[in-house]
Amino acid sequence: MGMTIKDIAKKCGVGVSTVSRALNNHPDINPETKKMILKTVEESNFVPNNSARNLKRTDSKSIAILVKEIDNPFFATMMRVMEKKIRRQKYSFFIQHMGKDQDEVDTALELIKEKKLRGIIFLGGDFRKNKERIAKIKVPFVVSTAAFDKLPEKCIASYVSIDDRAESRKIVDYLCETGHKKIAILASDKKDENIGKLRLEGYREALKAHGLEADEERICYLDEEDTTYSMENGYRMMKKLLKKETEFTAVFAISDLMVIGACKALLEEGKRIPEDVAVAGFDGLDYTGFYQPAITTMAQPVEEIARQSVGILFDMIETKKSQEGKYLPATLKERESTTGGRRTWKQD
Amino acid sequence: MGMTIKDIAKKCGVGVSTVSRALNNHPDINPETKKMILKTVEESNFVPNNSARNLKRTDSKSIAILVKEIDNPFFATMMRVMEKKIRRQKYSFFIQHMGKDQDEVDTALELIKEKKLRGIIFLGGDFRKNKERIAKIKVPFVVSTAAFDKLPEKCIASYVSIDDRAESRKIVDYLCETGHKKIAILASDKKDENIGKLRLEGYREALKAHGLEADEERICYLDEEDTTYSMENGYRMMKKLLKKETEFTAVFAISDLMVIGACKALLEEGKRIPEDVAVAGFDGLDYTGFYQPAITTMAQPVEEIARQSVGILFDMIETKKSQEGKYLPATLKERESTTGGRRTWKQD
Repeated sequence: MGMTIKDIAKKCGVGVSTVSRALNNHPDINPETKKMILKTVEESNFVPNNSARNLKRTDSKSIAILVKEIDNPFFATMMRVMEKKIRRQKYSFFIQHMGKDQDEVDTALELIKEKKLRGIIFLGGDFRKNKERIAKIKVPFVVSTAAFDKLPEKCIASYVSIDDRAESRKIVDYLCETGHKKIAILASDKKDENIGKLRLEGYREALKAHGLEADEERICYLDEEDTTYSMENGYRMMKKLLKKETEFTAVFAISDLMVIGACKALLEEGKRIPEDVAVAGFDGLDYTGFYQPAITTMAQPVEEIARQSVGILFDMIETKKSQEGKYLPATLKERESTTGGRRTWKQD
Repeated sequence: MGMTIKDIAKKCGVGVSTVSRALNNHPDINPETKKMILKTVEESNFVPNNSARNLKRTDSKSIAILVKEIDNPFFATMMRVMEKKIRRQKYSFFIQHMGKDQDEVDTALELIKEKKLRGIIFLGGDFRKNKERIAKIKVPFVVSTAAFDKLPEKCIASYVSIDDRAESRKIVDYLCETGHKKIAILASDKKDENIGKLRLEGYREALKAHGLEADEERICYLDEEDTTYSMENGYRMMKKLLKKETEFTAVFAISDLMVIGACKALLEEGKRIPEDVAVAGFDGLDYTGFYQPAITTMAQPVEEIARQSVGILFDMIETKKSQEGKYLPATLKERESTTGGRRTWKQD
């Protein structure tokens, strides 16, 4: 039913390669000819090869990105980077979003069965348990922004992430080195076995290295009923901490969303940041730089994680071999919320 | 190769319906039996029907969500709501993300051809032009968060959006009514033909209704080189406006991201909000409530737009008839950035 590129060429009285040049924005074509060809394409049923190539659903050239709940604030940025890189490789891709109650391994197995995928990128998720079932995933996959201790042997798999424990230790180290001895933390819930746990461990390690004790009174856990790293939860936790009248001169929140809520609570109670309480977050969300005061944070190399995840996936598709998981370094963004600093805000 | 539910039943020595009850968390089953069945399932190659049903890729029961560039800050929330509602209808769905240079109509046509979709939800996009090509989309579709003047006749289509012009007029009305006569606007780029244009028109209409003149000096346009509604652009525009020394006692930004950047620029220059400049945004992002001071904004009913978009799509799939496009009301959130107000922040 649809027209082919040959039909278009014939209709326009030009060669197929000329049509192709018009469609691909090639500079080497007469502008009038190009215009005429594009008009013909516009009026026809023909879907240009250009988009056909990008999107063609030959199931054998398809990559799925599986997202478990979109509470990863980097989601949009990572999508954008991955989309570009995957398309450049002439693979099609789509995003599969899962609900809280859906199992990522089941979802992956189902997609592989129905779609004959070439590869999968998991955006977050828990790959430390369920090893047996994970081993059933027979296509190469990369876990992005989370790590696992040991690669399942039967899998072709890898991960790209930051070292959450080490980077968390670094930012708490920084707080210690700037003179703080009473550092509170807004942590994850007590049952957390993933990044929340690692970031709390980093906090404990840093205090220990500086000869400080981790006072349980200064560790605020997320409620197990609602474990989202949200501004609202950060706000509530800080309000609660302030009521306890536990002494602290600095607070570290394990996520930037939580730190923004915590700042609101502090400012509302008349605390000055950082004169009364220094504040640091984790993740590197843009918002932290625009907050008043700008908030110190440990920034994840989000774009680089996305780029390398795709790169490693393509490598594994080619070699059919697992790759060692990879930690990328995070960057400490030192800002007014810990330095005081002048009012002249400089973008970093 | 995979096991069927019958194989599982046989292996466990129970009936198929018992296996089904175990898999579906039905209360009416002996806990021991359930445990045994789930263990067998776990150890087998069987993908439970439960997830199979949710995800089954019978191409005839599939919905695609097409997202053109993820600069819509509501993306995550909308996905979450849509995902739940689509799954409840036993449809499978996936998200197709497009780059800036990809054409949404081409993408849609390609997907329909390859996937035999039942319906499409476009998250944003421009459906005011390209009518002829849009008419080629033969499956029902809904445009979410953007409207079009007239439904293409050959399509089964609808939209769910706010009335950007009217809601923008309302919030500028509000600024006028609270005594402001010199109101600046951070607008879209001059060539914008979509929501940015509508929101600017709303601003002009409100001023006119209050007998005020729209001074071109107070209208700041986005640079045509970078038309994203970002914090950074809001920051830059406000810096520029402050340099011009044009008088203004209030500023309205057509997006919340822009307004956050603008606040940063104002505070940096030592301006007090709202004593020196009252500030209002548009969209209702959570961040505005946590900013210091909390920012007044016109909040879009994002979840309701998502819910109704899916509802209308299913209606159209059933009836095979277009539905009238629908505007949902936005809500003015009046906060410290225009009221001053007390420091006791109350969540709304």
